Amino acid sequence: MATAKEDDLNDVIEALAESYRTDARGARIGRQVLPSREATIEILELAFQIFYPGIYGRQDLEEEELRFHLGNLVATFRAKLARQLELSLCYGAEQEGLAANAESCGRHAKKVATMLVAKLPRLRAMLVADAQAAYDGDPAASSLDEVVLAYPGLRAVTVHRLAHELYVMGVPILPRIMSEWAHAETGADIHPGARIGASFFVDHATGVVVGETSDIGDHVKLYQGVTLGALSHPRDEQGRVIRNTKRHPTVEDGATLYANATVLGGSTIIGSESIVGGSVFLTKSVPKRSRVALKPPELRVVESTGTGDEEYPMEFEI
Amino acid sequence: MATAKEDDLNDVIEALAESYRTDARGARIGRQVLPSREATIEILELAFQIFYPGIYGRQDLEEEELRFHLGNLVATFRAKLARQLELSLCYGAEQEGLAANAESCGRHAKKVATMLVAKLPRLRAMLVADAQAAYDGDPAASSLDEVVLAYPGLRAVTVHRLAHELYVMGVPILPRIMSEWAHAETGADIHPGARIGASFFVDHATGVVVGETSDIGDHVKLYQGVTLGALSHPRDEQGRVIRNTKRHPTVEDGATLYANATVLGGSTIIGSESIVGGSVFLTKSVPKRSRVALKPPELRVVESTGTGDEEYPMEFEI
Amino acid sequence: MATAKEDDLNDVIEALAESYRTDARGARIGRQVLPSREATIEILELAFQIFYPGIYGRQDLEEEELRFHLGNLVATFRAKLARQLELSLCYGAEQEGLAANAESCGRHAKKVATMLVAKLPRLRAMLVADAQAAYDGDPAASSLDEVVLAYPGLRAVTVHRLAHELYVMGVPILPRIMSEWAHAETGADIHPGARIGASFFVDHATGVVVGETSDIGDHVKLYQGVTLGALSHPRDEQGRVIRNTKRHPTVEDGATLYANATVLGGSTIIGSESIVGGSVFLTKSVPKRSRVALKPPELRVVESTGTGDEEYPMEFEI
Repeated sequence: MATAKEDDLNDVIEALAESYRTDARGARIGRQVLPSREATIEILELAFQIFYPGIYGRQDLEEEELRFHLGNLVATFRAKLARQLELSLCYGAEQEGLAANAESCGRHAKKVATMLVAKLPRLRAMLVADAQAAYDGDPAASSLDEVVLAYPGLRAVTVHRLAHELYVMGVPILPRIMSEWAHAETGADIHPGARIGASFFVDHATGVVVGETSDIGDHVKLYQGVTLGALSHPRDEQGRVIRNTKRHPTVEDGATLYANATVLGGSTIIGSESIVGGSVFLTKSVPKRSRVALKPPELRVVESTGTGDEEYPMEFEI
Repeated sequence: MATAKEDDLNDVIEALAESYRTDARGARIGRQVLPSREATIEILELAFQIFYPGIYGRQDLEEEELRFHLGNLVATFRAKLARQLELSLCYGAEQEGLAANAESCGRHAKKVATMLVAKLPRLRAMLVADAQAAYDGDPAASSLDEVVLAYPGLRAVTVHRLAHELYVMGVPILPRIMSEWAHAETGADIHPGARIGASFFVDHATGVVVGETSDIGDHVKLYQGVTLGALSHPRDEQGRVIRNTKRHPTVEDGATLYANATVLGGSTIIGSESIVGGSVFLTKSVPKRSRVALKPPELRVVESTGTGDEEYPMEFEI
Repeated sequence: MATAKEDDLNDVIEALAESYRTDARGARIGRQVLPSREATIEILELAFQIFYPGIYGRQDLEEEELRFHLGNLVATFRAKLARQLELSLCYGAEQEGLAANAESCGRHAKKVATMLVAKLPRLRAMLVADAQAAYDGDPAASSLDEVVLAYPGLRAVTVHRLAHELYVMGVPILPRIMSEWAHAETGADIHPGARIGASFFVDHATGVVVGETSDIGDHVKLYQGVTLGALSHPRDEQGRVIRNTKRHPTVEDGATLYANATVLGGSTIIGSESIVGGSVFLTKSVPKRSRVALKPPELRVVESTGTGDEEYPMEFEI
């Protein structure tokens, strides 16, 4: 005979099971398996070891063993990636109402994995240029190794360049799992769809948001808290958001956006070599070589009567 | 005979041990054991598996095994939760100067755990509505599964809804350990005390701060960097902050607060269906259906003489 | 005979290996081993156990076993630290073009480790004062234990006080690995070079950036998103950034900077007991006891015609 407590538990389990049946949102039972977050993180960690050998992963690498080490890394990377791609592609097929055919997903997955692997040398060259841009742009950086080992911006950009290649090849969901891991690790939320040119530098990284349809040129610098966002989400006649328009800004070559600058809108263009000052809020384009800054705000600076203990003063209107 | 080096070590150990004795702040020796952060994280990870089966935890779930799987999850969740609740309740008793009676803490803990478990189906229904709100509100979301798997805002809200139930039941410290884990994982710092209505959407999440006495209605949207904060901390005649007043804003149904908006004060009310623009700083109430935006700032836009290398210009006053 | 697929892999591995040879940036093969991020995290976790016994690490500590427990912790801390210091110092020698002599690095490393260990009691006293400042300054804190266990600001400051000691002793790279871990964990990016006085409180922590040459007095409070940054990076005649100047502000005793305040420039001084309001952007000094706030912005508040569904209005200029 079940005790009262077991009955309680049974009721809850029954109610939960019923809830999955009556509302399948947020639950996946008897359906196509999603790609795994853990396996995706493993893939990204292998990528860091391939891009930055001797800095990530094994550190005491010697030239004579390099090919064995690298061969093992790249082969493992490709195999693990192919598996998660298979799950992603079958998931995409299911979402579009097509029969998820594991064999055809698997074939396609292997092709995509091989294509991505072929791009690794070119991606590495881009990432080295990104690291150099960080070193050149930041007086606090004491070496390029420090940038690779300790700059969250470069970590975010490394994941982004990989995720973006998969996004461009039409891979569903996996690129977003990758970018969200980078977001959690670094504080920078760069959507895999964003196009980003060469020698990109994100300093401090926390709070940076780069939207899906952003288009960023070469030699661009972003500081912490910069948002490249949407001005508004156009909706169709049923009131549903429309999902495929250019909603985010264009930032041309050589532009710099300082801390907490916010630039919104799909037709907003920051002209090349422009400088957008800290905390500027922009929804209009500015021509090339602009310098945009807050007008010196009329701050109220008054002498306090306090002793240092006092808090933000209520009587002092802000 | 000890070497010089061992003597050094002995001196340091002696000094540290002495410091714990003479100033017990920040040290707990021979006292009630605190709840464990690691065990709390395990509890939250089980909750994700219960709320989102087949997406978090085991992914290849089949209908016929669902009850066994779920039974195991919920029973483990309840047992682990009860243990951490016991520690939390005994800690709370100790703080209030009551004798920490493990048996009575344990009895109370089991009751609270059972009450929370009974709420799981209702919490799941709320969380599914939160996921739907995210999908409906973000054109970059390609499926509800993507929202569940990769949106930090939903992760933060999932933890919050659990932590808030415990907060309401008067459980000390444990809800804050939960919310701080969510903060570290997602960048959104939502105090367990905050009341949050149905269909809540936090996009991008980084830098969001929602204070303890915030009161948020249904269908509210917050973007990255939004602060619902305190204007000032009233103090008693001894100069100590007073800890139980409404210090944080009220946000009514259907309001949207865009990136980096800051709203402060316990009597500040954002009326229903209002829209607060990016970077707006508000310490006064606005009526329902308000649209609040920065007045287009008088930006200084001047042509640069530079070559693209130049940094934020010193000669250009900001 | 190799299949087509193996050939593909061989080509990629060849190209990558070639890329490390022709451009050694971002790769370290056959060179001095860098300090390990994982080992550095272990060291920091041991430090938390030493500073906050019974709260981090083993929780059921009893007085009679304290010296054994502590002796083991401190000895392990010193040994692990010495090893990573050795790698850091040899790396620094290599960077300066000196021969990396493992024996001399090792001797120097042991000396530095012993010096740091000797400072642990004083550091603990400072950290307890920091925790007290957080408790005193935040009405949402219900106990000092809660601050130690769950406040990201105190976590960041704990790592900072250790990293800063190593920075001051001239240790290369290791302090930055420490500070970057704290940044990833807490959202606060405090450069190890920053000088920070007693009783420092960072609330919420996310998005805080404190630059390398910042100078912060006693009893200072920073809220989320505060930046103490550089106004501009002076460059030498070759256009390279100059790396050793005071680039970041001075914040005097008792000052408070509210959420998202940005203060820039090496000669900018926030006078003692000053209060800088939320979202204020400052590049000039303010005298002691100033209260600086945004002038109440001329917000446009208009009634919406909408139904609550509407998004940020395009037709509503911002």
